[in-house]
Amino acid sequence: MNLAETDTADSDLVTAQENAEELRGLIESDAVNDAAVVLDRMPEEERSAAVGELPTEAAADLIEHLLEQQAAEILEQLTPDVAASILEELTSDVRADLIAGLDAQSAFDILQAMSPVEAEETKELCRYEPDSAGGLMVTELLAFESTSTVQAVFDDLAEHSEEYRDIDVQYSFVVDGKRLVGVLPMRDLFLAKRSTPLFELMIKDPISVTDRTQLSALEDVFDNHSFLGIPVVNESQELLGVVQRSSLEHAIAAHDRSDYLKSQGIIGGEEIRSLPVFERARRRLSWLSVNILLNILAASVIAMYQDTLSSVIALAVFLPIISDMSGCSGNQAVAVSMRELSLGLIRPAELMRVWGKEISVGAINGMCLGMLVGAAAFFWKADVMLGIVVGGALCLNTMVAVSIGGMVPLLMKRFHFDPAIASGPILTTVTDMCGFFLVLSMASVLLV
Amino acid sequence: MNLAETDTADSDLVTAQENAEELRGLIESDAVNDAAVVLDRMPEEERSAAVGELPTEAAADLIEHLLEQQAAEILEQLTPDVAASILEELTSDVRADLIAGLDAQSAFDILQAMSPVEAEETKELCRYEPDSAGGLMVTELLAFESTSTVQAVFDDLAEHSEEYRDIDVQYSFVVDGKRLVGVLPMRDLFLAKRSTPLFELMIKDPISVTDRTQLSALEDVFDNHSFLGIPVVNESQELLGVVQRSSLEHAIAAHDRSDYLKSQGIIGGEEIRSLPVFERARRRLSWLSVNILLNILAASVIAMYQDTLSSVIALAVFLPIISDMSGCSGNQAVAVSMRELSLGLIRPAELMRVWGKEISVGAINGMCLGMLVGAAAFFWKADVMLGIVVGGALCLNTMVAVSIGGMVPLLMKRFHFDPAIASGPILTTVTDMCGFFLVLSMASVLLV
Repeated sequence: MNLAETDTADSDLVTAQENAEELRGLIESDAVNDAAVVLDRMPEEERSAAVGELPTEAAADLIEHLLEQQAAEILEQLTPDVAASILEELTSDVRADLIAGLDAQSAFDILQAMSPVEAEETKELCRYEPDSAGGLMVTELLAFESTSTVQAVFDDLAEHSEEYRDIDVQYSFVVDGKRLVGVLPMRDLFLAKRSTPLFELMIKDPISVTDRTQLSALEDVFDNHSFLGIPVVNESQELLGVVQRSSLEHAIAAHDRSDYLKSQGIIGGEEIRSLPVFERARRRLSWLSVNILLNILAASVIAMYQDTLSSVIALAVFLPIISDMSGCSGNQAVAVSMRELSLGLIRPAELMRVWGKEISVGAINGMCLGMLVGAAAFFWKADVMLGIVVGGALCLNTMVAVSIGGMVPLLMKRFHFDPAIASGPILTTVTDMCGFFLVLSMASVLLV
Repeated sequence: MNLAETDTADSDLVTAQENAEELRGLIESDAVNDAAVVLDRMPEEERSAAVGELPTEAAADLIEHLLEQQAAEILEQLTPDVAASILEELTSDVRADLIAGLDAQSAFDILQAMSPVEAEETKELCRYEPDSAGGLMVTELLAFESTSTVQAVFDDLAEHSEEYRDIDVQYSFVVDGKRLVGVLPMRDLFLAKRSTPLFELMIKDPISVTDRTQLSALEDVFDNHSFLGIPVVNESQELLGVVQRSSLEHAIAAHDRSDYLKSQGIIGGEEIRSLPVFERARRRLSWLSVNILLNILAASVIAMYQDTLSSVIALAVFLPIISDMSGCSGNQAVAVSMRELSLGLIRPAELMRVWGKEISVGAINGMCLGMLVGAAAFFWKADVMLGIVVGGALCLNTMVAVSIGGMVPLLMKRFHFDPAIASGPILTTVTDMCGFFLVLSMASVLLV
């Protein structure tokens, strides 16, 4: 190694230590989110070194508050030992989510560096879909044999009080071997004699879900019961973990957020502006390039009516208005359908109900918007027929747009496409084609 | 009263009882959400009668699962006594939210029918902003005097066990008079001698928030600590209530959802399709009518270039493409900015950072999209200059669109407009005007 290289390595270490010092100060003064922003603003190559210099607990705290992709990049660059010890500080569900987001080699190396029991458990959890009960549950919980006494529970709590510090102890679970047979509200322990066995105190046949239960079904269970946590079992009724109400709410929020981003054309994971520019451009472009082909397709309708356009050039002013306004009306209908679907207020098969509800609103709004635009056209060119053509086309196309906008999310859902991604482009293409056709064909009859 | 009227009244009652029977069956078999859908599908005038026929507890369960506007309509139509007894079944925060959503007269009448203590408490809670700690907290909690002994707590729990059933008892709070002085993890009670006074056991100087703490600050507190609930105090450090983690997550989800709906033009409350058609049309139209005026403004740029358009009619095909595609690119930037703002990754003042990050992505994607559209124009008309004009304009306008899209949410936030509502229309108007101007002015120089 020559002198220059040593210097660089030394100065890198100094930078990392200085960065870590700044992060640590923020984390220890309860400003983890600020620390996440500071890390986000560091040059990419400095981030993992800074995290590596942090005390393990602080590093874990910080990693938990990063977006998944950024956390993954950092964990992949740390040595497997350091990454493993950071991950061991986190709760089982967070740990599994992070491992699942790593490239295969890093995931393997880090699991190797973890304790065999935790590695095995983490691998189990990684197998679940993120939006299932198995993917949302934590495995940290209190479970006692049904034959144990109240006294035995008290002793166990006293012995492991440090270890249990971060566990939700509102309820403990009662098992025969691994099989869940009851839940025990901890408050009932206060009132019981110390020699009572738990099977006399416990609530029998408790509500539980299986590890495959999906997000929407979980939502129903939590809606129907005021519990803060619900036990998760496998097909053999063996206790696997517990889903907390706050984890469920968190997952729902993440789901809605990802729908919003997808509907605006941010696909393939959340974008933050500290990602490399080519990565950001590539992701956005994948969506844009599909859209531009659909746009060219729609505009080809205009190309077929060039003669009409040449003779009434004023129409060219109104084509983008009709395209934009139909898009707006249709998007309103898409948003209401997406919302009603996620609330369970409509089933994907109820196309006719949605159409009936939309067409009436579309008729009212279409007439209002059509009159507005028709009046604008009339006053501009003093041409009644131009006003009628433009206003009439917008009125009709508004009805088309709300019908498509309302029904497309249901159709997408029914045929297992993602309604958040596909609804917008389909809506725009169809309403553009239809709008251009309406205004230009009416013009070719009435104006030319 | 004549015979016909009696018949109608009788048959109304029978309908209400039959409806209530159906709802009750669903609610009691843990399908409250299905009951909400059934109610949603009933004719508007039958809904409150059906709810009025339900047992109070079932009615409360159902009311809690309706959208706020629908719940308000039903409560307003019930007699104040019935409405009050339903509301008294709900937790303090839900009750206050519902009362706040009623018309003033109904709210007054129902509060009059409630017990004076609960009415007073509800009025207090109604004064808070919904997204503040005061608006999110529940007042149901366990608080004990610091001089009480462990034995006294056990006795109190035993005595009120039924009443405390729905209270989160993970922690109880320790007070001197009304002043919060400590928190007491319930598990620590198990390990303590029964004669110990609470001030010896409690965690002193607990983390708390004030009733005015805003949603984003609350999020930070919960991010920095793993607590399931955080006590809320006033300026005099008096204990007012507790905000639960799941309530916070719920509020954040509602916030994001409302942003999504607003960005798609659903303003003034969530729309469900069982609302009256004129109400739905009116709400959507208020947003559309602003948009159409902005659209006409943008299209007036085209009107100024009619001569250019007449001589190169092919341009009319590309105007809507440029408008739509710029809108798509800009909306992607809006979505990323909205998200970074809500994550706290950018501050509203960081315009230049956002612009720098956007313009580079815009340049890459603008070039790709410009080449695509330019090639399409060239192959269609075998006209190199047409391709250059159309492609060049789209390339430049993509850069404009991402710049505006990225920066507008920050500007809106800085000047206290709602970025979810205002960003879209501003983006569309500016990029349309700019796009039309670019393509038509370039054409007037290069093509005519």
